[in-house]
Amino acid sequence: MSAELPSPSDDVLTALTPTARMRPSTSLLTDRYELTMLQAALADGTAHRHCVFEVFSRRLPHGRRYGVLAGTGRVLEALADFRFGEDELEFLSRHRVVDAPTLAWLEDYRFGGSITGYAEGEVFLPGSPVMVVEGTFAEALLLETLVLSVLNYDSAVASAASRMTSAAVGRPCLEMGSRRAHEHAAVAAARAAVIAGFAGTSNLEAGRRYDLPTIGTAAHSYTLVHDDERTAFASQVAAQGAGTTLLVDTFDVAQGVRNAVDVAGRDLGAVRLDSGDLLQLAQEVREQLDGLGATGTRIVVSSDLDEHAIAALAVAPVDSYGVGTSVVTGSGAPTCGMVYKLVAREGRDGTLEPVEKASARKGSVGGRKCAARRLDSEGRAVEEVVVTGPDDAVATWTPAEAELRRLMVPLVAHGAVDTRWTGAVGVANAVERHQASRAELPRGARRLSVGDPAIPTTVLRLT
Amino acid sequence: MSAELPSPSDDVLTALTPTARMRPSTSLLTDRYELTMLQAALADGTAHRHCVFEVFSRRLPHGRRYGVLAGTGRVLEALADFRFGEDELEFLSRHRVVDAPTLAWLEDYRFGGSITGYAEGEVFLPGSPVMVVEGTFAEALLLETLVLSVLNYDSAVASAASRMTSAAVGRPCLEMGSRRAHEHAAVAAARAAVIAGFAGTSNLEAGRRYDLPTIGTAAHSYTLVHDDERTAFASQVAAQGAGTTLLVDTFDVAQGVRNAVDVAGRDLGAVRLDSGDLLQLAQEVREQLDGLGATGTRIVVSSDLDEHAIAALAVAPVDSYGVGTSVVTGSGAPTCGMVYKLVAREGRDGTLEPVEKASARKGSVGGRKCAARRLDSEGRAVEEVVVTGPDDAVATWTPAEAELRRLMVPLVAHGAVDTRWTGAVGVANAVERHQASRAELPRGARRLSVGDPAIPTTVLRLT
Repeated sequence: MSAELPSPSDDVLTALTPTARMRPSTSLLTDRYELTMLQAALADGTAHRHCVFEVFSRRLPHGRRYGVLAGTGRVLEALADFRFGEDELEFLSRHRVVDAPTLAWLEDYRFGGSITGYAEGEVFLPGSPVMVVEGTFAEALLLETLVLSVLNYDSAVASAASRMTSAAVGRPCLEMGSRRAHEHAAVAAARAAVIAGFAGTSNLEAGRRYDLPTIGTAAHSYTLVHDDERTAFASQVAAQGAGTTLLVDTFDVAQGVRNAVDVAGRDLGAVRLDSGDLLQLAQEVREQLDGLGATGTRIVVSSDLDEHAIAALAVAPVDSYGVGTSVVTGSGAPTCGMVYKLVAREGRDGTLEPVEKASARKGSVGGRKCAARRLDSEGRAVEEVVVTGPDDAVATWTPAEAELRRLMVPLVAHGAVDTRWTGAVGVANAVERHQASRAELPRGARRLSVGDPAIPTTVLRLT
Repeated sequence: MSAELPSPSDDVLTALTPTARMRPSTSLLTDRYELTMLQAALADGTAHRHCVFEVFSRRLPHGRRYGVLAGTGRVLEALADFRFGEDELEFLSRHRVVDAPTLAWLEDYRFGGSITGYAEGEVFLPGSPVMVVEGTFAEALLLETLVLSVLNYDSAVASAASRMTSAAVGRPCLEMGSRRAHEHAAVAAARAAVIAGFAGTSNLEAGRRYDLPTIGTAAHSYTLVHDDERTAFASQVAAQGAGTTLLVDTFDVAQGVRNAVDVAGRDLGAVRLDSGDLLQLAQEVREQLDGLGATGTRIVVSSDLDEHAIAALAVAPVDSYGVGTSVVTGSGAPTCGMVYKLVAREGRDGTLEPVEKASARKGSVGGRKCAARRLDSEGRAVEEVVVTGPDDAVATWTPAEAELRRLMVPLVAHGAVDTRWTGAVGVANAVERHQASRAELPRGARRLSVGDPAIPTTVLRLT
């Protein structure tokens, strides 16, 4: 996938089809107030006003230099199942969440609006309009909670994961954190980690759903259920071949390594260390393996690693990193704080008007926005350009200058989802996009130390 | 529900029925290594060894005084759908995750073992054996990842939520964080928050699934889509009655409050403040409301609240707290770090033997455990007693001393799930359990400041 995307053609546009009915509805994965607002707006007619909602982050987590957008493909997948079936309507009726006219309206609900946004995997900065949802107030409002749930979690994981793959400087990172996240969040986390450069995941459902490489061989319990370590290793090698990874730290590491090479031979694929002082241990194990002639046997480490621990292991003879807790919890920033704000709506006279909340310090800038990234002559990003101005001008804006890379891509056109962004294809495209987008950042952007956003955000006001 | 539970009788025990086949399988929500271990263990026979796995936390998050167990009911619900259907087997076969004999074994898989544990909602301490899973190595091993995903996330939320409801000292806390968590994690978070004392949630799916009170009226976008605030308020009151909650901080708060009372009258249910200096603002708004004669109108606040912000508002005339990000992300501790460890397994001679991992500092104590809480003469908890010793003695141990409250309850008996812990009934029981368990803690336990575990954990070794 290149930065220059072809326009969506008919064969990549998929209308929301009735087959979606076979999957569970996503329409109640939402806040009650979306529906109570809907009822009042249907009654007074504002529900039908044309509106523009924008998703953006006010700030990055403390000290982070960039964020990584993830979840876009999952938003589009969830959209296909966002319908109110018999069960959902029955619940809303029984609990009097909304009245009869609103129930009737919901029964026919399909999102018929349009969505544009940053391509999944793209780097974002504070204020970047990462997604723009356009339609009637009613149809666009209803998506708020679900859109934010997906983007906030997935982007939190991808943003942390990108720092880890940066710190690993080419050594593979493997996502193993399923047990430290909600069981379905774990699937999304695996997907987001891969988008940000992870080489694979332990999560089988993520492997199935998004065609990701899955990894994993054995845990300590496997060694412990056997009479001794040698028996356990022999049985694992018999089942999986010498190319497997043997976990050598259940008892004594040095003895574990001896047992591993004894049993599997010098062609043993890898040993895994899941505890202790990994920096020193990796050194010792490398020497021991080499001394035993197992020079091709790799060393996988996996004990409470985060981006800082990975960076500290740069000098150790480690071949890959298994990362758990820290990646699935966003390494200290478990959500992105993205918001979904109404920025323009049709007024009484039928024209779109910018709107903004005025009180307190939460004020956001009204009006439709789009964005581009300014590159220098060497192709390095130098600033995030957020474009504002008259609605028509912003909606149709295309960068005239060669050094401005357009960031918005079409995602949904009048209810039809662009399938280049969904499923396994969507993930593959996002992996490429993230790699290209991160490579474009100024060098300092990938430092782990506390700092400012990698590039400043400026406003280009069209007239 | 009292601490003394009746034994499960036939009518509360539900076998895992074929109707579970209609729901999506949960069996691939797991790490690949559970299946590769299974294959090797099936081949060498250890798969059939009787085993005891234990779930526990090595430590509480920094400075926390207690944890709250949540997710037990969800584990049991997920267990009913943990089966390998055609689609799952096809994936495992196509990607060569396991061999043909393992696929054949998985096709017939149903968990036929037994599970005991702390009742959901119970307070736990480091080392508390909150869940004990017993069965063959194969059947118990397969549940590891899913059990941990559920308990780690749900308990992280409940542990944070309990601090918030403590800090609120009787004022209702309302869970509104769906948008800051994965869309399905949000449902679990709502459930866990309610278990820890929250009065309701904005999440409709959680309301539907667990029969929780749902709340919510309007957001800033609702005001902004209208021509002005008065029109928006009037329309909301027309749709929802004067008892509704009006969001008064879209423009100017004082004007918002005037508009609200003008439009809804003195019987206005509540106003909501979602920004600004809530301590001062609540004071001003209360005076203004009283001055307008709306003395019964309540004040709801909801701007980035956590337990500390709630405590700081104790002196403000606030009637309820809307809590978002911090509760669904565990207020700084988004996972519990619970582990699922093999503690005993059948040896060659057919008897259960304790096992433990020896290397590094991760060493856990081998052997089956159970637990009781020691109470003083006034019914205050004074210590967590973890019972170890010969397997039979621990398995059948009942506290003889009146001041020892038994903590383990039966959850699954030979594959049959005790439905007192599932669905809406399970949540209601967990709410009661948490309330009673927290009330029993020494007074200092509910302080928010950094401290040690509320009660020490001691080991009682049976002979």
